Amino acid sequence: MLIYKGENLNTVRTIISGSGSYIPPQVKCNEDFKSNEFFDSKQGRIPTANEEIVEKFRQITGIYERRYADSNQSTSGMAAIAGERAIADAGIDPETLDQIIVAHNFGDIDAHSVQSDATPSLAARVKHILGIKNTACVAYDILFGCPGWLQGVIQADAFIKAGVAKKCLVIGAETLSRVLDPHDRDSMIFSDGAGAVVVEARESAPDGSGILSSCARTFTVDEARYIDMGHSNNPEADQQILYIKMQGRKVYEFALKHLPAAIKSCIDDSGMPITAIRKIFIHQANEKLDEAIVNGLYKLYGLTPDLPSIMPMNIHTLGNSSVATIPTLYDMVRKGELPEHQVVTGDVVVFASVGAGMHMNAVTYRV
Amino acid sequence: MLIYKGENLNTVRTIISGSGSYIPPQVKCNEDFKSNEFFDSKQGRIPTANEEIVEKFRQITGIYERRYADSNQSTSGMAAIAGERAIADAGIDPETLDQIIVAHNFGDIDAHSVQSDATPSLAARVKHILGIKNTACVAYDILFGCPGWLQGVIQADAFIKAGVAKKCLVIGAETLSRVLDPHDRDSMIFSDGAGAVVVEARESAPDGSGILSSCARTFTVDEARYIDMGHSNNPEADQQILYIKMQGRKVYEFALKHLPAAIKSCIDDSGMPITAIRKIFIHQANEKLDEAIVNGLYKLYGLTPDLPSIMPMNIHTLGNSSVATIPTLYDMVRKGELPEHQVVTGDVVVFASVGAGMHMNAVTYRV
Repeated sequence: MLIYKGENLNTVRTIISGSGSYIPPQVKCNEDFKSNEFFDSKQGRIPTANEEIVEKFRQITGIYERRYADSNQSTSGMAAIAGERAIADAGIDPETLDQIIVAHNFGDIDAHSVQSDATPSLAARVKHILGIKNTACVAYDILFGCPGWLQGVIQADAFIKAGVAKKCLVIGAETLSRVLDPHDRDSMIFSDGAGAVVVEARESAPDGSGILSSCARTFTVDEARYIDMGHSNNPEADQQILYIKMQGRKVYEFALKHLPAAIKSCIDDSGMPITAIRKIFIHQANEKLDEAIVNGLYKLYGLTPDLPSIMPMNIHTLGNSSVATIPTLYDMVRKGELPEHQVVTGDVVVFASVGAGMHMNAVTYRV
Repeated sequence: MLIYKGENLNTVRTIISGSGSYIPPQVKCNEDFKSNEFFDSKQGRIPTANEEIVEKFRQITGIYERRYADSNQSTSGMAAIAGERAIADAGIDPETLDQIIVAHNFGDIDAHSVQSDATPSLAARVKHILGIKNTACVAYDILFGCPGWLQGVIQADAFIKAGVAKKCLVIGAETLSRVLDPHDRDSMIFSDGAGAVVVEARESAPDGSGILSSCARTFTVDEARYIDMGHSNNPEADQQILYIKMQGRKVYEFALKHLPAAIKSCIDDSGMPITAIRKIFIHQANEKLDEAIVNGLYKLYGLTPDLPSIMPMNIHTLGNSSVATIPTLYDMVRKGELPEHQVVTGDVVVFASVGAGMHMNAVTYRV
């Protein structure tokens, strides 16, 4: 194991003691979009044939298929399943949890409605479903765009370091299938899912496991509306209804310009050299963008990464489920579901995300 | 000033360095409800005359009138005004803020829509409106029912104690007028507004100012749905649309059973005797309930409180604006807008709230 110069192992560290995820059952393939009527953001019909649109989409995003929740499922219901699995994996008594933190962006939305419902908070709903009786277990929701789950981990780490919590369940869950505009090509990116971890305080961890550093940023001067809610691209659709909208080009350029530097700042704060980083668990936003970000990070160190070994990806079959992507990806690697990727005790990994806000964050973690 | 036995003044404390609020312009009087058609929760028409319904409502809640946002206003817009006022009151450079925390429950809702919109997060919108450029100022939303603003303060205190923040802007803002069912008597309780504080780290505060203790609880086994979203009481209304709904009797009994004990636990943790508490800033839920809670608290100590001097209230003219009530009330007292109540340096006060989740919390604070 690499111990960095001057590293103090006698401090309280936040470790990930368990993970879980829930991948909803409905498989939506790219070819399922072949009869959609696509319009551009100026509401002009896109003349290109759908086969060509979908193929170009696949080349950029890497997505072949994605998962949607069934109509009787909810964000909080999926969150509870992922949370229960993380608790079982950690082997803890759920009554010993100090906090349940649920990251999302749209609350629960009934499949036949456009209304978001987060009263009570999704964390309270999860706590109810899990049947946790301990009233000192505080359950709250955090909204921080796609980086919300990782921000929940960063907050849990702060609570642990402040001595106000020892065990937290941090969940990211979303049903983007209920806020997407079927007339917008970008909507093919989005999917549903839930991922969770249990984080715990470890005093004087002999193996140095735990969160080594973190970093969070919010850009709002020009960037606040790069991802937001807007009306359908189809001029004949009900223009009162809001859907998730992205200024794709701006998001791409923004992420590429700022996220590599934020990740570097986080890694440098950890005391670790870039060569010690075994895996980068990056928000599954778009394959080309994710590759460009990781290439950009290594370029800041004058290096070229071996992308296939450093960067586990599951976007090809799961799409972009916002807050759920990183914990789902990490859970799959921990459980051996992506055989080409392993993490073992002592490995140093990075989590990183960017999304609506625009927010971004990163965490350096020794497994 | 009362220094409790064994109190260590050489610690980092979280002080409130400024406050601000925004009270929207539309005055909605009780008599404005006299032509509403009221139904009960079983969708039966209430036979009582509206004059009698409204008068009984006033006797229980203490509310004569409440404020609604104008149709061109938004929750985030009001939040930004309150935030700007708190920043000005604290006399800080907004670029030195480490965090902007916005508590709400329904995001921004257009006056002509039922859709909640919190993408980007309201905190990002506030940061945008305030023109804050510093990207290290992290802006996130917390959902924790009515106690969300106070929970934001508790989180800011943890971040300050963990050394990850020194200055935070904590805002509570809500437009309940956009989620209320005009056919439900309970809807007369709800109002709109925004309140904010700046909290800052103070090392070795000579006057002992700052947060002395805090307490938070989440009850979800039986209580998760005491306040939630449901359809209109009017059977002829669109039953797809969700409105805020309360099981008033259950909320009342729950709050009275559990909140006094939670506040006592918080006060006792601070080391302060109950006799040292000068003011209790309680969530403006309902006058009778608030009085019963404070009476219940003092009863746990075998005492009877002097309610008019201990408990500032503004519910009579402002109604229940959820997350906004406590910071608005505290701001009004600080600024001398409730002349019968003053707080001066050294006073020990309590903040306490209860609401959807069901969540509750309390903070003991030396001014």
